[in-house]
Amino acid sequence: MIMRIARTTDSDFEALYQRITQRGRVFDEDLWKVVEKIVDDVARKGDEALFDYTQRLDGYALTAETVAVSGKELEEAASRVEASDLAIMRQAAQRIEAFHRHQIAENWTVSDEPGIILGQRIVPLERVGIYAPGGLASYPSTVLMAAVPAKIAGVGEIILVNPSRGGQIHPLIAATAKLCGISRIFKIGGAQAVAALAYGTETIPRVDKIVGPGNAYVAAAKKMVFGQVSIDMIAGPSEILIIADQTAQPAFVAADLLSQAEHDEMASAVLVTPDEVLAREVSVELKRQLERLPRRTIAERSLEAFGAILVTDNLEGAVTVANRFAPEHLELIVEDPWKLLEGIKHAGAVFLGHYTPEAIGDYIAGPNHVLPTGGTARFSSALGVYDFVKRISVVCFSRDVLEDYGPKAARFARLEGLDAHGNSISLRLAGKNS
Amino acid sequence: MIMRIARTTDSDFEALYQRITQRGRVFDEDLWKVVEKIVDDVARKGDEALFDYTQRLDGYALTAETVAVSGKELEEAASRVEASDLAIMRQAAQRIEAFHRHQIAENWTVSDEPGIILGQRIVPLERVGIYAPGGLASYPSTVLMAAVPAKIAGVGEIILVNPSRGGQIHPLIAATAKLCGISRIFKIGGAQAVAALAYGTETIPRVDKIVGPGNAYVAAAKKMVFGQVSIDMIAGPSEILIIADQTAQPAFVAADLLSQAEHDEMASAVLVTPDEVLAREVSVELKRQLERLPRRTIAERSLEAFGAILVTDNLEGAVTVANRFAPEHLELIVEDPWKLLEGIKHAGAVFLGHYTPEAIGDYIAGPNHVLPTGGTARFSSALGVYDFVKRISVVCFSRDVLEDYGPKAARFARLEGLDAHGNSISLRLAGKNS
Repeated sequence: MIMRIARTTDSDFEALYQRITQRGRVFDEDLWKVVEKIVDDVARKGDEALFDYTQRLDGYALTAETVAVSGKELEEAASRVEASDLAIMRQAAQRIEAFHRHQIAENWTVSDEPGIILGQRIVPLERVGIYAPGGLASYPSTVLMAAVPAKIAGVGEIILVNPSRGGQIHPLIAATAKLCGISRIFKIGGAQAVAALAYGTETIPRVDKIVGPGNAYVAAAKKMVFGQVSIDMIAGPSEILIIADQTAQPAFVAADLLSQAEHDEMASAVLVTPDEVLAREVSVELKRQLERLPRRTIAERSLEAFGAILVTDNLEGAVTVANRFAPEHLELIVEDPWKLLEGIKHAGAVFLGHYTPEAIGDYIAGPNHVLPTGGTARFSSALGVYDFVKRISVVCFSRDVLEDYGPKAARFARLEGLDAHGNSISLRLAGKNS
Repeated sequence: MIMRIARTTDSDFEALYQRITQRGRVFDEDLWKVVEKIVDDVARKGDEALFDYTQRLDGYALTAETVAVSGKELEEAASRVEASDLAIMRQAAQRIEAFHRHQIAENWTVSDEPGIILGQRIVPLERVGIYAPGGLASYPSTVLMAAVPAKIAGVGEIILVNPSRGGQIHPLIAATAKLCGISRIFKIGGAQAVAALAYGTETIPRVDKIVGPGNAYVAAAKKMVFGQVSIDMIAGPSEILIIADQTAQPAFVAADLLSQAEHDEMASAVLVTPDEVLAREVSVELKRQLERLPRRTIAERSLEAFGAILVTDNLEGAVTVANRFAPEHLELIVEDPWKLLEGIKHAGAVFLGHYTPEAIGDYIAGPNHVLPTGGTARFSSALGVYDFVKRISVVCFSRDVLEDYGPKAARFARLEGLDAHGNSISLRLAGKNS
């Protein structure tokens, strides 16, 4: 049996819960120090440090002339993507755009009293940096998920950084960037890329926000530069929690757990069900499906360390468990998923019914796949258009209403020990210019 | 002359700009280490460390029995506030509520194709902690600015922490808390209070988000626990930038600059004007008004270190300077402020015209006074209802649409090297349950 079948009443459930939700959260002081040095060096020395770290850590040489992907490089790399694949990416981009258009917020102005105008203006960020992870695979879907909402928000300029292997941009990344109209791409990655975006160097422009997932170094660097720039979130390893009842197909449930577990050894996959028969059947299915999986070793390790099948007394109990985990991905493979959804308080994205595997949401359904992990869905949301705008408050008072409210504001200020605040009001009310 | 009159073309303008925008941004390694120890101790030892630090740093003894403000304490303290002051606070709360109600976002569901349902649910945070700074003065207005939007959002429970002097809650804080219906108040402050809220102790419940300004220790602690909980922002010293033209009254402008400068010695007040005559008149007015100010020393030091009067060629040039500073507070004391507003890209809150001193916005106008400082208005916004909710994406596919989109998602996954993703789709399409 790959995953133990447990109950939330088991004496070691708390330890299991902590292990799963705290994974990847361990503060590694050594890593922090390494990242601190990188960030500090790049902030102070700019390109020199950036190129030096790229050579040392990623193993390829960069110069001010080669750090940016040229138009020719972009075209050549993109042209290597098959037309049929490009069509899929284009359709994905269209669906992502259609979904995210619903997130556009509008300026508003109100006048609740004669002489008072209040409002809120929505203004796009000027420049945003997207971190697209590199390494063994490339993740063009992440470029779509970050760039499409940024474009809808009206961001002035989108910068893409990607630790291209050997300094060559990956065809899929090139194709997606072209699709999104991103023309400034830099062949950098890791903590040094985050630092370059946050502080700017001779070749890399400083951005206002850095978005996109990355490894532990990237996550630490993002936390470090937070405040200097905005960041989307500190991403941890991926996870799924599935609530299933007796109507669920064990094979479907097992396949979905595995689609998460194959991501990496730190990924987590949890099934919560009131049906003990299903629990056992899924356990058997997991074993069967694992055998045919190319990324079997990774999936197996992930399931063993951070997987669980939990049996609850009823569906309400399963919802309680799900809310406690606050999972990144939540599937409701039950008879009436919409009814169950009412009770869900904490999750990044919810996938309803028997025919909505999480994989469809990762790519083409429309919602964003950059989601809060490690229980942070308690307080944060999927990447969205709202991440690429800020709001400016607007206030305009006439002399008449200042006469009414001014003395009250002045009194309030005096209660807080601030007298000059009062002067700025009394002077106006005594003014000759009235 | 208190403030030098400068031009952006002056050779030392860049240094002035850096001094003003980077103030309070200096990373103090010693302070960081002290805060790290406090946060770590409270996270590990709970109440014991929390009470110990309160005794050592704030100078009063706490126990599990006395850390919370009792109902009796709350009533007694609140009853000491004059009825007329309470009426002002109540009216401020009502106006703040009216403004923030416009920020409520609604759930939405769309079906853009038969068989596909997509949506976004807005869910309030479960538990939020408000940090109300203590020290010499008390800031009941901050309690209003944080609690009112949290209540509108539907936050389950609001916890208030306040480093009450000598362990006695300040009457104004008590009255505002009562007004906002906050009943759980703890007499703690500093980095130890932030840590207690982030990790929970035996007496202090763990929250999902910590909001509200504080000193450098509080700011460092908030940055440190970011990720474990959500935080609103890392607040720096307050600031104002005023754009004024020849229609402005020098006395009004000077009074507004001083209302900011009196906050603390790190505050910044900058006037930008194309009118050299106004520049000189404001300079004279500043000196005159300063003499009558109770907090004169503070205001003077602030103006000398972080104040400036900048003369530009025209109003467009003034707008460019303002956008570069991205000030927390921006006043447009000009003939046509609405026209000028169109060009404003970066500011926390904008105050338009001759009769909207920033002081009115601090207390009673309606918009939030918890605003981004130190140039962070480039990428962040006033505290608002949106800070107290998160969004959950919803996806539901039918078998028929999975047949269309599923293979595309599977292909996309395979391009990224993920095979089990494809299995979760192909299994469903081959399934007997179709």
